Amino acid sequence: MTQPVGIALLGAGNVGGGVLQALERGADRYAARVGRPLEVRRVLVRDTSRKRTGLARRVITDSLDVVLEDDAVRIVVEVMGGEQPAFEHIRRALESGRHVVTANKEVMAKHGGELLRCASAHSVRLLYEASVGGGIPIISPLSRDLLANEITGVTAIINGTTNFMLTAMAQQGSDYADVLAEAQRLGYAEPDPTADVEGIDASYKLAILCGLAFHVDVTPTDVMRAGITGLTARDFRYARELGYAIKLLASGRLIDGELVATVQPAFVALSEPLARVDGVLNAVQVEGDLVGRVLFEGPGAGPMPTASAVLADVLDVARDLVAGRPPAENIAYRRVRVRPASKVTSRFYMRVTVADQAGVLARIATILGKQDISIASVIQFETDPDAGTAELVITTHATPGGKLEAAVRQIQALPVVNEVGNVLPMVGG
Amino acid sequence: MTQPVGIALLGAGNVGGGVLQALERGADRYAARVGRPLEVRRVLVRDTSRKRTGLARRVITDSLDVVLEDDAVRIVVEVMGGEQPAFEHIRRALESGRHVVTANKEVMAKHGGELLRCASAHSVRLLYEASVGGGIPIISPLSRDLLANEITGVTAIINGTTNFMLTAMAQQGSDYADVLAEAQRLGYAEPDPTADVEGIDASYKLAILCGLAFHVDVTPTDVMRAGITGLTARDFRYARELGYAIKLLASGRLIDGELVATVQPAFVALSEPLARVDGVLNAVQVEGDLVGRVLFEGPGAGPMPTASAVLADVLDVARDLVAGRPPAENIAYRRVRVRPASKVTSRFYMRVTVADQAGVLARIATILGKQDISIASVIQFETDPDAGTAELVITTHATPGGKLEAAVRQIQALPVVNEVGNVLPMVGG
Repeated sequence: MTQPVGIALLGAGNVGGGVLQALERGADRYAARVGRPLEVRRVLVRDTSRKRTGLARRVITDSLDVVLEDDAVRIVVEVMGGEQPAFEHIRRALESGRHVVTANKEVMAKHGGELLRCASAHSVRLLYEASVGGGIPIISPLSRDLLANEITGVTAIINGTTNFMLTAMAQQGSDYADVLAEAQRLGYAEPDPTADVEGIDASYKLAILCGLAFHVDVTPTDVMRAGITGLTARDFRYARELGYAIKLLASGRLIDGELVATVQPAFVALSEPLARVDGVLNAVQVEGDLVGRVLFEGPGAGPMPTASAVLADVLDVARDLVAGRPPAENIAYRRVRVRPASKVTSRFYMRVTVADQAGVLARIATILGKQDISIASVIQFETDPDAGTAELVITTHATPGGKLEAAVRQIQALPVVNEVGNVLPMVGG
Repeated sequence: MTQPVGIALLGAGNVGGGVLQALERGADRYAARVGRPLEVRRVLVRDTSRKRTGLARRVITDSLDVVLEDDAVRIVVEVMGGEQPAFEHIRRALESGRHVVTANKEVMAKHGGELLRCASAHSVRLLYEASVGGGIPIISPLSRDLLANEITGVTAIINGTTNFMLTAMAQQGSDYADVLAEAQRLGYAEPDPTADVEGIDASYKLAILCGLAFHVDVTPTDVMRAGITGLTARDFRYARELGYAIKLLASGRLIDGELVATVQPAFVALSEPLARVDGVLNAVQVEGDLVGRVLFEGPGAGPMPTASAVLADVLDVARDLVAGRPPAENIAYRRVRVRPASKVTSRFYMRVTVADQAGVLARIATILGKQDISIASVIQFETDPDAGTAELVITTHATPGGKLEAAVRQIQALPVVNEVGNVLPMVGG
């Protein structure tokens, strides 16, 4: 217990504050588990004039140079978020020979490959357990505990904001705008909710998961993405009556060596464990050739759960430093071809508002039939005698997305069809 | 890709067969992930005369000496099960400088501390991910990913046989003897089911989990244990009506620095994730001061899931061997005092068959009141006019187990009481 292990924090916001608080509260425990105390040497902030309780003035700086000039800093913890300057800071820290722990999903999704190679080149480690699923251990289980498996699929609920909203829509029968307002009031959704509700945040996390699961280079642009803004209270009612929940599912799969990665709202059969993951909880289900299906569930966000993951990585690096263990090689990722969604097969749910008159279903069925799309069920859920309309809920057997899309275009063009509402894939059941 | 990493298997039964099959199927993949091929150099079996497909004659031996004399063997994989000779074999392998990977819950629960110290003394690793929860990553998440937490509790369903049986009792309304026969017919239960149905198997696994979670020395004798043999179809019916499932819960907790570890059937509120873990699935829920609650769920047994965990450990050791990384120090465990169950507080369910006459409940309530036990609900579920009996289901508010036990003894002695049936703790809700 002599020389402490020096740590620098980049960022002292929500997550940074959680990390600092946990480090203080657990100081003795961490010292015992590492074999040396951990010492926060530097904290990089934007505004050095702001008063921060519990932090000595001398550790605070707004200059990365000051951080990196401190030779006692061995581990740099990046918890500022956002792509820049975080990416540049991480790169410079690695190049300076510092181990880096980051919670940054955007940087890891967009630049993970480059940064991991940079870490290898400088014989340091870059760890990012906190970038996906908050406190849920998932990066490390995929990298280590399931490494003997050929992973065949990853299916996840990895955005707490939207899962909170979808759960509220399902339980309260509310519409999208209402639950968004509620989520914003509770602080679960940002004033500008785009990154969450359009699935951007989830696509970052899925790109990271796919990389680890399949050992392939995946960037967020490889992820086919659809948001939740078009969902209505009726979709949730129909889902329930059909025995499904609606979830924003992040799903990655290798099919014939091609990557299929999607973030989209989907019907999930109530018999599936993921259908019961409610509120702000996150869950990741991994399928492997040996293990079958395993599920990891827990709080996907929040300062303390995220600090749990950040500090797990910090302790891991610190224990290696104390033991003089060199970093293990990162497993090399290979390039992968992305399979377009049009070629991917799924069962589908489709809601169609039509004129309430004879022969309408026959015309829709004919279009589907010509595209070789087999109908699993048709239920007429609602008629509006005043408007003279009815609502058909159609579910299909497995069919390629491209064929369904073509059929939907033709159905939409029928004069007896007012609107094709949401078209959503169906999972399980 | 020159020198292979030599492996020896101790045992070639169900799990060993799974490991061999997975090693063969994944040979190229494992070579790529490790940086060198893995080679099975020796397989220790009891009966060398039995023909074994896919295994060269020269690797089979019934002598541990032959295994340990082979200098190319760097990793010994123990998958024979049982306490002896497995324990002795593991010890000798460690002493000979071999890294050991084991799936043996009994050996790790009873002798884990000694063996881990032995591994440290010989600068080798002893890994045992497969000893708890089959293919579910749980040992490594507790040792690494949740290490920043002060773990406050571990609650788990870690015996697939009994969970299959309890699920069947709940779903089919069957009695214990019938589901046991069904489980035996399906191969889920052994001809002698004692280790499963009496909670012995689960107590081994819980002892291992508690050690890792709390960094304390725990042996199976520290675990308070009750089996499922006394459960009846009626208990399941009452549970359902009260909004609970009945599960064989393994639960570990540190209360004021004292260990409380129990394996017992318990009422689990249906709102709890563990209540929905059905069939042969296993699940482990961990509570930590930073992370809150995380849940790990998956197949808790079977040759291939177990091989997934065994080979994860093998790959980890092999990658370290290739990189020349020395083993990390094991975190030292401290001695812990065990808190007797009589001092542990819980809510309870109790089923009492009484004479169907006025004043009976008053007498029972008086006894409970004198022990300071507060009644949460009393429901008279069944009356048998022929026998002149009624069945009372009583649930209590939180009360120390010792007080409840004293009250049960007095209630049992009442002349108007025919029988106090099961008394079970209640969790959640």
